[in-house]
Amino acid sequence: MSERPRRRRGAGRKAKHAARQKPTVEISAWADRKIPYFEVLDEEGLELIENNAETVLEEIGIEFREFPRALELWREAGADVDGERVRFPRGLCRSIIQKSAPAEFMQHARNPERNVIIGGDRTVFVPAYGSPFVRDLDQGRRYATLEDFENFVKLTYMSPGLHHSGGTVCEPVNVPVNKRHFDMVYSHIKYSDKPFMGSVTAPERAQDTVDMAKLVFGEEFIQENTVVTSLINANSPLTFDGTMLGAATVYAENNQATVISPFLLAGAMSPVTVAGTVTQILAEALAGMAYVQLVRPGAPVVFGTFAAAVSMQSGAPTFGTPEPSLILYATAALARRLGVPFRSGGGLCASKLSDAQAAYEAANTLQTAALAGVNFMLHTAGWLEGGLVMGYEKFILDADQASILGVMLRGIDLSENGQALDALREVGPGAHFLGASHTQANFERAFYRSVVADNNSFEQWEQDGSLDAAQRAHTIWKQMLNDYEAPPLDPAIDEALTDFIARRKSEFEDRDY
Amino acid sequence: MSERPRRRRGAGRKAKHAARQKPTVEISAWADRKIPYFEVLDEEGLELIENNAETVLEEIGIEFREFPRALELWREAGADVDGERVRFPRGLCRSIIQKSAPAEFMQHARNPERNVIIGGDRTVFVPAYGSPFVRDLDQGRRYATLEDFENFVKLTYMSPGLHHSGGTVCEPVNVPVNKRHFDMVYSHIKYSDKPFMGSVTAPERAQDTVDMAKLVFGEEFIQENTVVTSLINANSPLTFDGTMLGAATVYAENNQATVISPFLLAGAMSPVTVAGTVTQILAEALAGMAYVQLVRPGAPVVFGTFAAAVSMQSGAPTFGTPEPSLILYATAALARRLGVPFRSGGGLCASKLSDAQAAYEAANTLQTAALAGVNFMLHTAGWLEGGLVMGYEKFILDADQASILGVMLRGIDLSENGQALDALREVGPGAHFLGASHTQANFERAFYRSVVADNNSFEQWEQDGSLDAAQRAHTIWKQMLNDYEAPPLDPAIDEALTDFIARRKSEFEDRDY
Repeated sequence: MSERPRRRRGAGRKAKHAARQKPTVEISAWADRKIPYFEVLDEEGLELIENNAETVLEEIGIEFREFPRALELWREAGADVDGERVRFPRGLCRSIIQKSAPAEFMQHARNPERNVIIGGDRTVFVPAYGSPFVRDLDQGRRYATLEDFENFVKLTYMSPGLHHSGGTVCEPVNVPVNKRHFDMVYSHIKYSDKPFMGSVTAPERAQDTVDMAKLVFGEEFIQENTVVTSLINANSPLTFDGTMLGAATVYAENNQATVISPFLLAGAMSPVTVAGTVTQILAEALAGMAYVQLVRPGAPVVFGTFAAAVSMQSGAPTFGTPEPSLILYATAALARRLGVPFRSGGGLCASKLSDAQAAYEAANTLQTAALAGVNFMLHTAGWLEGGLVMGYEKFILDADQASILGVMLRGIDLSENGQALDALREVGPGAHFLGASHTQANFERAFYRSVVADNNSFEQWEQDGSLDAAQRAHTIWKQMLNDYEAPPLDPAIDEALTDFIARRKSEFEDRDY
Repeated sequence: MSERPRRRRGAGRKAKHAARQKPTVEISAWADRKIPYFEVLDEEGLELIENNAETVLEEIGIEFREFPRALELWREAGADVDGERVRFPRGLCRSIIQKSAPAEFMQHARNPERNVIIGGDRTVFVPAYGSPFVRDLDQGRRYATLEDFENFVKLTYMSPGLHHSGGTVCEPVNVPVNKRHFDMVYSHIKYSDKPFMGSVTAPERAQDTVDMAKLVFGEEFIQENTVVTSLINANSPLTFDGTMLGAATVYAENNQATVISPFLLAGAMSPVTVAGTVTQILAEALAGMAYVQLVRPGAPVVFGTFAAAVSMQSGAPTFGTPEPSLILYATAALARRLGVPFRSGGGLCASKLSDAQAAYEAANTLQTAALAGVNFMLHTAGWLEGGLVMGYEKFILDADQASILGVMLRGIDLSENGQALDALREVGPGAHFLGASHTQANFERAFYRSVVADNNSFEQWEQDGSLDAAQRAHTIWKQMLNDYEAPPLDPAIDEALTDFIARRKSEFEDRDY
């Protein structure tokens, strides 16, 4: 017998119409995990890394540059401050974090149904972040504009597999650098009701983000609740700069969440081994998260990491390879032991197109991130070309994968209905299950149904135009933008936001940095 | 700071020449696993499924069709035989298997360096199996020929990530159905020195396979050693047919290995739930493997499974979705508890092309199979269109993934060199690691280097012709076939094989079934 599926014609035909009316993906505010975490290191291995990270913090230390207040806080906390270099007694950072950092926190959205809890057995899928370029099949690769930004906010709003609107989903380069944060934050609020991320490119832009959030949520509410989660990258190796420290400080002072992310290309910005890189990540994250707790004990922090491997031949970043996956698995386990939420992962790839390279690389990282236990999965959808490009078609393809992961995390239904012994009794040897009453009762939500995959026969696929996955994704995002309807926004809030933006934009000159 | 990698120019330039001369993938006979298995069910969940499978075997039973000898053996073993339906006292199949089936076995290759051990903490990657069509970018989709078959044997021989030559890597449809097994087995022996699979489409073809193996390995050797592993599919649900039972019997009598594989599209050939499908798989595999042990106690058997989900809309098989992944994880755990090697997985997809759909779906199943603990990963490379098509470009892309998985399974190096504390001490905050002595000492084998991925800058990629991954894979397989050199084969063995084939082919008429 040939080892290939025999197509069953007319399967479930009588249920076809009904099924088309209902989505198989349940819309939920986040993905709940009911399967275990995948661990690549045992207790002894994790302790070794933890011990080495403490050695790095103690002997080598971390530089806190261009930000004297951080040095003061560290001196008060008992660290050894030498110029901008801070060295830490063993265990100091860990104990500061464990004393006050929450194990999980709710980030409020303007629609309470979209509130997310970040941490614990939950995964929040977030679009990609930071690309100056966009790409789609019509116009190819080009600089991103504010219209592109708005488009990705709308597409994210409409994607059931994505739970969070993200931050700089692409750089709106047609808006001056020092003013685009207003438009980005406004777009997230106006065109979506999912939670969003704030500006980190200058402390005053972080403050503008907080001030805009106050207009939406109320000044008192945000001092007690988290409504923005923002991305603070380390300047690896072993350095935080004044810009990032300034933004982190503003958010922490206002009880808003920060993701403290060592960001590195292993081999260039960290050692060329997995264990060495994980050690560095842990040291950097410990120092950064502890700093946030010194600013305001209890301010939510997420242990973040972004790790790719640098090609030793060209210096280019590579994705979807085994070493960054191993780094991710180990780091996730270290974050759990520390007791804080974890960010990593996403649909990372080096490919220029939404081709097979893009998909293999993205799938490898997405699977790893889901099984490792990422809580806040930045870069889930859209990422191309090492993050230089946000791809419209890639976004649709990745968002479909996010829905797949959401279902996988739910694990296996072991209820009596799930066990299906009666179905086996009803059908018996050699017959088929399509008409069985158990099948009829369960088919609607039985199996994940991709929005992009073509599972038809070759002949049908040819009749439909012989499209590849990117071409189908192209049709989908255009249709989504065509069908988009904005979630309602209180006109008084909208006016307050636009007034605030107009006033603030008039207070200083345009600048390209 | 934008969240995207900064390209480091001139990285490792001085080592560039040397690195090009050496592969980063170590060639080994199989992939050794040093990371844990990923388990989705706990002890209680696995026991529940095992208990339900025993209920299926006891109450419903399995049909052994058109093969009276199987019924006799079952009657002698204490099963309840009613026509062709066999019902089993609880625990009978399990105890038969655990009494005599080996936990792992060596399959010998004609080159002893290519011998594989199937079972335990090892994964053997095997190409796809059974496609009547092939596809490549030059000629599109067309019926496979013997030349295609030979090409895939040669490509597999040259792929360091693949450890086994496979079986019906595609159907050589230009050779009569009842004679093509001679040419397939001969191709595996002639054009490769990796281990291979035998014919299962009729008992006499299985015997021909064994007889050809005797000419290569010697008659006595094969009675003591396993030199062929062959694929026996169940006719799910709950049925084995005379053809498959006949072939399995021939192989078992000759001490050759069989993979007993429930082969099903969940929802059509099994219940529409994960737990119900896993229960059926376990019941079928238990009955099939126990039968083999009744024929010859100790003959190697592999617990196989192939499970896709059927689309409830069209009846088409779907791949890379969460439910088959969950089925695979659970089944692998059940095989481990039983104590036999496990086969599943591969680069499965429904796509017609080597596009993003093909790659997401393939990667999802490949990752799952590797983490679940598949020992014999059939269909690792080449699979397109639900198994109807063997793709040349897909083969190259998947084989690259097999190498990635081989590295990932090795886990994290925690040696002093792996820990890299001295590198961290040498470099310190804000500097970079490219010139560090630790980097220089380790860069050659530091990170996996894909043979297909393009990690260059956009500008460089454009200069190189703006190729997608499939186009690059096309160039690679053509170059490989151009460079192919056959492994030496003793001319006396070659002559004995060709004489045998000529004689046997002359003994009966061509037939198309």
